[in-house]
Amino acid sequence: MMSTEFNLIKQYFTRPTAQTALGIGDDAALIQTSTDHQLAISSDMSVVGTHFFQNTAPYDIGWKSLAVNVSDLAAMGANPKWATLAIALPEINPDWLSAFSAGFFDCADAFNIDLIGGDTTRGPLNISITIMGEVPMGKALTRRGAQLGDDIWVSGYLGHAALGLAHLQLKIKLPDEIRDTAIAALHQPQPCVALGLALRDVANSCIDISDGLLADLSHILKASRANLTGNEAMGATLQLEKISCSATLQNRLQEPIIQQAILAGGDDYELCFTASSNQRKTIAAIAKQLAINLTRIGEINESGNLTVQFEQQNINITTLGYDHFA
Amino acid sequence: MMSTEFNLIKQYFTRPTAQTALGIGDDAALIQTSTDHQLAISSDMSVVGTHFFQNTAPYDIGWKSLAVNVSDLAAMGANPKWATLAIALPEINPDWLSAFSAGFFDCADAFNIDLIGGDTTRGPLNISITIMGEVPMGKALTRRGAQLGDDIWVSGYLGHAALGLAHLQLKIKLPDEIRDTAIAALHQPQPCVALGLALRDVANSCIDISDGLLADLSHILKASRANLTGNEAMGATLQLEKISCSATLQNRLQEPIIQQAILAGGDDYELCFTASSNQRKTIAAIAKQLAINLTRIGEINESGNLTVQFEQQNINITTLGYDHFA
Repeated sequence: MMSTEFNLIKQYFTRPTAQTALGIGDDAALIQTSTDHQLAISSDMSVVGTHFFQNTAPYDIGWKSLAVNVSDLAAMGANPKWATLAIALPEINPDWLSAFSAGFFDCADAFNIDLIGGDTTRGPLNISITIMGEVPMGKALTRRGAQLGDDIWVSGYLGHAALGLAHLQLKIKLPDEIRDTAIAALHQPQPCVALGLALRDVANSCIDISDGLLADLSHILKASRANLTGNEAMGATLQLEKISCSATLQNRLQEPIIQQAILAGGDDYELCFTASSNQRKTIAAIAKQLAINLTRIGEINESGNLTVQFEQQNINITTLGYDHFA
Repeated sequence: MMSTEFNLIKQYFTRPTAQTALGIGDDAALIQTSTDHQLAISSDMSVVGTHFFQNTAPYDIGWKSLAVNVSDLAAMGANPKWATLAIALPEINPDWLSAFSAGFFDCADAFNIDLIGGDTTRGPLNISITIMGEVPMGKALTRRGAQLGDDIWVSGYLGHAALGLAHLQLKIKLPDEIRDTAIAALHQPQPCVALGLALRDVANSCIDISDGLLADLSHILKASRANLTGNEAMGATLQLEKISCSATLQNRLQEPIIQQAILAGGDDYELCFTASSNQRKTIAAIAKQLAINLTRIGEINESGNLTVQFEQQNINITTLGYDHFA
């Protein structure tokens, strides 16, 4: 699962780097541009039909295509500052462009990002953004720092974006009280920049939940294997009941589609991070200060497996998340 | 001419920046990441059907899609160091991917560039690259520094890429002795990085010839208008005979298609730069040291017009270059 896209990158596009602090494989790369700061850099490409419906509002396409990049920097504990935008357009449609750029710049304004360059060309609609931000030397949050015994945390509420998508695809009919919230989570995700900055000296590892909680947590487990000293195998155990979601969903946790949305739906752009248990008070203080929800959902162990428990039973995990090439 | 793409960027995507040394409008943006260096950043998107034929060899697509980005940094006098690659693929074709990545990495190796990140997704073939490089504080070559009386220079030979394209499109039949050279110029352009570095303290303005000599020179004239102090209007006069091209083309300068290829063909990725006349000896020394051709083709004047002379007559200019949305 998830293997196709990652194998593609690994097989064809990953080589040793000569002048790079952290290359391909994390939420962002790190390059050294001064003695006291590093630059975190990430690129994401959005294709209509794959990442967006044909009829998605252009404002939402503008917002989200930048927001998913901002989220990558949030997951690194970096402060986003600059972005480039390359866009292929099938035609020049002023209404579409006005709404797209309004969404793009509203997101840029929300996170103090300058658009510094880009390219426009004719072609099937494609939006490619590269984002850059600063992080003090050595303070970046990566996927590779998880330690045995770490608590596993997530921010916010999971599953809304996937359920919003399922609702729009007529696969589920969401109750009125969460429908708008779920669709907003899908179309206008809110990257956790302030949280990433607050976690710089607190978390051992961090990732944003784009592919799905289990897929993204498995990236942390894989990247952090090198931290093991003996014959242990890094694993994690989660309790489904502990994962925050709306009250409506909490009452329906036994339904496979709800489980799937929370565990593997992705597109949430919340942060999943691990931290030593002696950071619990600090993390509670961060949650209070930022007025956000931070929930401890499990722990890193030496089981070698990713296990999810619900009502004291292990859930049968059928998919970890989303793969563009599966 | 050229107005559609530029108006599109100006109208929808250009806003004041708050934390950027040089924003949209030059070959690359400049951001300040340390006290003594700036980072030059540029993005280019390549679409098959627009930038490449459907049947272009994937090795050439890999080389050229990176090379055009490298060329943008060369035009800034920056030292390219890092790139991200976002690619949308209609399918996973191992032969195509192997050849594409070989071309991409051969170009990366030729210019000491690390691939540090990117994205792969399913969609109509689209290649979006962002390149980053370093330039010492205040040393970047921009489009905005041309002065009245400056000499105008170009590197290498112009027109080959456009004629290679015309040959492949069966619009012209190139003689054997320049056919391979022209097609190589089209498919595997060689960015002028060493020249850009050598021009840092020599040129007043610089641009790479991607849209076409006249279009790119007009960008310099427009960007440099602010340097005028009185009521003059910045213009330029060029002598067609002085522009370097192969001996074969030199004998056919009276043909409109040859004139068009040299003046407006674009895709050459040579540098066009302006410099004070007291730099002529220095520029001759650079040409000798780098074993390249640097030709003085005209001068910046206060005519307000862009004029090309051939056999003492003004040529009627019908097009400046290429516009993706014209």
